[in-house]
Amino acid sequence: MGKDVDNIEDMWQAAYVSSYWRNGPVLNNALSGLDQALWDIKGKRANMPVYQLLGGKVRFAIPCYTHAGGNTPEACADSVKKFMEQGFKYIRIQQGGYGGVGSTVDKPDFKAANFGYEGDAYMNVLGYLKSVPKMFDVVRKQCGEEIELLHDVHERVQPIEAINMIKQVEEYRPFFIEDPFSPENMKWFAQLRQTTTVPIAMGELFNNINEFKEPMVNQWFDYIRIHVSQIGGITPAMKVARLGEWFNIRTAWHGPGDVSPVGHAAHAHIDLAVWNFGIQEAVQFSEKTQAVFSGCPTMNKGYMSVNEVPGLGVDINEKEAAKYPITTKSNWQVRKMDGTIIRP
Amino acid sequence: MGKDVDNIEDMWQAAYVSSYWRNGPVLNNALSGLDQALWDIKGKRANMPVYQLLGGKVRFAIPCYTHAGGNTPEACADSVKKFMEQGFKYIRIQQGGYGGVGSTVDKPDFKAANFGYEGDAYMNVLGYLKSVPKMFDVVRKQCGEEIELLHDVHERVQPIEAINMIKQVEEYRPFFIEDPFSPENMKWFAQLRQTTTVPIAMGELFNNINEFKEPMVNQWFDYIRIHVSQIGGITPAMKVARLGEWFNIRTAWHGPGDVSPVGHAAHAHIDLAVWNFGIQEAVQFSEKTQAVFSGCPTMNKGYMSVNEVPGLGVDINEKEAAKYPITTKSNWQVRKMDGTIIRP
Amino acid sequence: MGKDVDNIEDMWQAAYVSSYWRNGPVLNNALSGLDQALWDIKGKRANMPVYQLLGGKVRFAIPCYTHAGGNTPEACADSVKKFMEQGFKYIRIQQGGYGGVGSTVDKPDFKAANFGYEGDAYMNVLGYLKSVPKMFDVVRKQCGEEIELLHDVHERVQPIEAINMIKQVEEYRPFFIEDPFSPENMKWFAQLRQTTTVPIAMGELFNNINEFKEPMVNQWFDYIRIHVSQIGGITPAMKVARLGEWFNIRTAWHGPGDVSPVGHAAHAHIDLAVWNFGIQEAVQFSEKTQAVFSGCPTMNKGYMSVNEVPGLGVDINEKEAAKYPITTKSNWQVRKMDGTIIRP
Amino acid sequence: MGKDVDNIEDMWQAAYVSSYWRNGPVLNNALSGLDQALWDIKGKRANMPVYQLLGGKVRFAIPCYTHAGGNTPEACADSVKKFMEQGFKYIRIQQGGYGGVGSTVDKPDFKAANFGYEGDAYMNVLGYLKSVPKMFDVVRKQCGEEIELLHDVHERVQPIEAINMIKQVEEYRPFFIEDPFSPENMKWFAQLRQTTTVPIAMGELFNNINEFKEPMVNQWFDYIRIHVSQIGGITPAMKVARLGEWFNIRTAWHGPGDVSPVGHAAHAHIDLAVWNFGIQEAVQFSEKTQAVFSGCPTMNKGYMSVNEVPGLGVDINEKEAAKYPITTKSNWQVRKMDGTIIRP
Repeated sequence: MGKDVDNIEDMWQAAYVSSYWRNGPVLNNALSGLDQALWDIKGKRANMPVYQLLGGKVRFAIPCYTHAGGNTPEACADSVKKFMEQGFKYIRIQQGGYGGVGSTVDKPDFKAANFGYEGDAYMNVLGYLKSVPKMFDVVRKQCGEEIELLHDVHERVQPIEAINMIKQVEEYRPFFIEDPFSPENMKWFAQLRQTTTVPIAMGELFNNINEFKEPMVNQWFDYIRIHVSQIGGITPAMKVARLGEWFNIRTAWHGPGDVSPVGHAAHAHIDLAVWNFGIQEAVQFSEKTQAVFSGCPTMNKGYMSVNEVPGLGVDINEKEAAKYPITTKSNWQVRKMDGTIIRP
Repeated sequence: MGKDVDNIEDMWQAAYVSSYWRNGPVLNNALSGLDQALWDIKGKRANMPVYQLLGGKVRFAIPCYTHAGGNTPEACADSVKKFMEQGFKYIRIQQGGYGGVGSTVDKPDFKAANFGYEGDAYMNVLGYLKSVPKMFDVVRKQCGEEIELLHDVHERVQPIEAINMIKQVEEYRPFFIEDPFSPENMKWFAQLRQTTTVPIAMGELFNNINEFKEPMVNQWFDYIRIHVSQIGGITPAMKVARLGEWFNIRTAWHGPGDVSPVGHAAHAHIDLAVWNFGIQEAVQFSEKTQAVFSGCPTMNKGYMSVNEVPGLGVDINEKEAAKYPITTKSNWQVRKMDGTIIRP
Repeated sequence: MGKDVDNIEDMWQAAYVSSYWRNGPVLNNALSGLDQALWDIKGKRANMPVYQLLGGKVRFAIPCYTHAGGNTPEACADSVKKFMEQGFKYIRIQQGGYGGVGSTVDKPDFKAANFGYEGDAYMNVLGYLKSVPKMFDVVRKQCGEEIELLHDVHERVQPIEAINMIKQVEEYRPFFIEDPFSPENMKWFAQLRQTTTVPIAMGELFNNINEFKEPMVNQWFDYIRIHVSQIGGITPAMKVARLGEWFNIRTAWHGPGDVSPVGHAAHAHIDLAVWNFGIQEAVQFSEKTQAVFSGCPTMNKGYMSVNEVPGLGVDINEKEAAKYPITTKSNWQVRKMDGTIIRP
Repeated sequence: MGKDVDNIEDMWQAAYVSSYWRNGPVLNNALSGLDQALWDIKGKRANMPVYQLLGGKVRFAIPCYTHAGGNTPEACADSVKKFMEQGFKYIRIQQGGYGGVGSTVDKPDFKAANFGYEGDAYMNVLGYLKSVPKMFDVVRKQCGEEIELLHDVHERVQPIEAINMIKQVEEYRPFFIEDPFSPENMKWFAQLRQTTTVPIAMGELFNNINEFKEPMVNQWFDYIRIHVSQIGGITPAMKVARLGEWFNIRTAWHGPGDVSPVGHAAHAHIDLAVWNFGIQEAVQFSEKTQAVFSGCPTMNKGYMSVNEVPGLGVDINEKEAAKYPITTKSNWQVRKMDGTIIRP
């Protein structure tokens, strides 16, 4: 942009309103890349890791949760045990994928009627709702009281159904349940809070940090699931983290496998620096990824660490990256048995 | 101060605003000493115990709760039985100290990583949360239904975790649960009240009596845990007690062992005089303490009594006190396993 | 009652619930006499004026307001000037009595129709509403900006009419407007507060101190008009005064001429001792009254003072009192022009 | 403390809870000094001015307001004109000091009665309330529409009186009115907001940043008046500034002359870096001060600037400082004419 790279806040504010309409996913992904690059540069100029610019470490390393799963409760329990042996203390459990997509043997009617698009998946809502408490019961019994269990609803059921299901799993003491409602259904949190004390994680679908204001001020959820590379980078993520400190809501940055190692490093530097950190979604980088990105955050016994070089600590080998051209991914929907599209 | 000792209220109001910034813990401790001395003098001038100046007795003596504890539920139950034999009808139970600090055998990760300060303690949050319902279960079963049981959370867990835990102990009918939230988290009381009917005690961490206004007007808690020697003395404590009468919230003055016998006498005189008294934290004075402070309040079968001499009834033997010079106390923090500081 | 006179609070609490139904005007007047006697005795036993038992003086004397009036705005202004010369800085103005009762020359229709009872008065509501802003305009112009002006609506108009009238007098900066609404109309305060910043005084018609809770917590009025000899004495009046300190609402005890000098002394002792005192209604005792009651509070340049003898300082000469047997007073109502009874 | 100076946030969190009772004015002043020193050191280690660590500049310099005053409206206008010639665009006006203390010629009754403490000041509340609208009227007429005018109530009148006065000055378009209420009276903001659209500044009396939460979430005021050297330093001040960005409340750090140049530099570095900066209280350093503190922020045409050296940019010459030993300041109260203490 030909500007002074030091003025990160000014550039962020300029970009935020540059298109008049506030930052949707397209602008925001670009802005996140820019913002993360500017913090990386500032760290290098200061000869400090980025977490030092954010106030320094408040913990020695970052506790993470990993993903266990399987097509039966027992398979889930086996998967959990495997990760416990690796030292993980926080494990997310999903039976048959998000919302049990693909786990049912029922043949969906809409496909028989030639409705929908090729590649569309389907979901058996009732099957999913029944399966989750059973999964928690089996895993809790087989894996003991010491392990923290998480689960992601992925917004795919009706709000009142989600509330009912979360109430049922309260006795298994989940660490958090994620995304019980889609963004259109935020007002249902009031009933959820009256009904259960299960901690809730929310926010990976928000585009604009202002979407966090009302639910956080009202303490509707307990863990902030920002997708940092989607919300505009470290600058706005720090503002949401600080809002969380005011209301004792903790961070749990969204860290799926398709976020780049730079993005994961951005998470990790914030995680080390904010008091109200909660948990981090773990990632283990493949050898190919590490070949492209040197200096990836590392995992050890359930904790993530960053290297201690200036900036974010991750560099890109562009020559290596050229080996992996972008490929087009197919588009698909999840539908109910009658063909109705389900909103994630 | 060289002023008329009769004008207690005027001196309190003057001191309250004397530093422009309202009374923090330092000024307030000094002010408490001054205020308690002024009431002591006024009682002596009137030839009456202080409780007479506050309206006279509304009960013959003061029911107290004492502290039982141990490192296992069974040890807690044994401790409770011992105090029941002494006549106590209200007993607080803590397993492994406040928040179970130090009770875990886990090696804290942050210490291995050389993070934090020397002497820092650590807390296994999950271990604590699981232990409390079990402790209540064992103690209730072994000690019967006739004994009132109390417990102090000491603010060391997340609000949603505290709410969940309190909900679990509701079936054991606690007399009160103390300090579920730190002062930064008062808004969580709304959800706590929707979730359980367990009586709650709160307030030993407040510095300024105005911090009591909102939670009491909203009836968020049931017992006022003022630290009288911290809040500015008898004058402001009486104002909070009177506010409690309007909203039917009862007193439970904070009475740890490091409050002086003069402070305990101040509690006792108020306890005798206010209708909405709830319970008093018991204290038993050592022989050394009684040598320094003559006229200490006395305990008998779970009741505290004051002597009937004018004023607060406690005198200080300065010569005897000189035998015990002030010693420096070490400073330490409580941290989570990853090194994060836990706010009490 | 054969009880220990020291236990004032206990006796008050016992009397409060002694009839199951809480204290109406009959019980409360008796209870006020008892409570004031007990504080008088306690002061004498302590050899201290009662204000000393309440925390000591927070001001040297008690600023009072007096009553000016007349049948025209100009007569009101003349009356105000007379009191200003006596040193009064706060003066209440009423044109033609409360609500202008009796000030109109209109002949009421209901009397011609032989409706109502003998002795009933009547009120021209429209005439009253128009007269008040004019009275304020004339008095403010003739008497200057330095004098504080008060007015008592005496609850005799519709709430929306009172709000409209108070809005009109805001520019004349009244010190307070009293009793805009009858006790049945408390919810109208919300609209009054949204409409004007005129300070409001309220409460002489309340029987039970709990009637003060909601309006004070919501800061609906600024001055507490308790009739101490009606609400149960010094004990409950102090509790309402303390509630006022929490919400910065000040005292303005109801002090009409038919309250005894003992009652006025009770006001004065509280007035000297509470920080959030606002103003006191003045009274000047006749020679006859002073012959019956020795030690009456005295007035000087707009300030009331008490003598400094132990107790309340007022004694009754029963022999002298016997000269004035109780005489029956006639009962009468205020009605509108069509005969409808007006609620005060 | 012998700890790693890099971990500012961890040290702040540790200090915040180190005394169990949260930070009152005494701890907080010490903590502010520590926190500001740590940011200074971090800036020096990074070879950057502190504002760079906070995200970089979002403005080139800092608009400030200065203090004009006098004993008459006309003297205030003359004072304003003098500062306008110096280039100031924002000017605070006070007639006769805060709350007009000392400006009245009335002889206070309480002094004649030998009440209160030696050196106590007095305030004519009515005189103050009448003087402010007149002052605004004269200054606005004489100084024109282009100058922004501010005023500080200093919390010394009743809430309902402050609301009434602010309503009266609305027509003169003040930039902000500061401290209409003492911290005990925050609930009155609801009525203030219903009554006027005058912008409000608040917060110099808060000790703990959590006192800002409720009023800011409810948007009760428009400018944050934190005393940074009182609230715990740059770390917590940045958190309040960020909270302000969420609710569009702007900064106006409290910058009286008794804050050190280091404190003013801390203000200035934050002012340069936060988007929701509002205004800064100006300060002009004497030659003596500049001799002790090298690198003081500078004023030019109403703008403050910092030097561009690493850290906060201000150094202390301890040898020079030793020339000015600490002197004891007298303690005094402000009272009403009847002797009642007025809370600032």
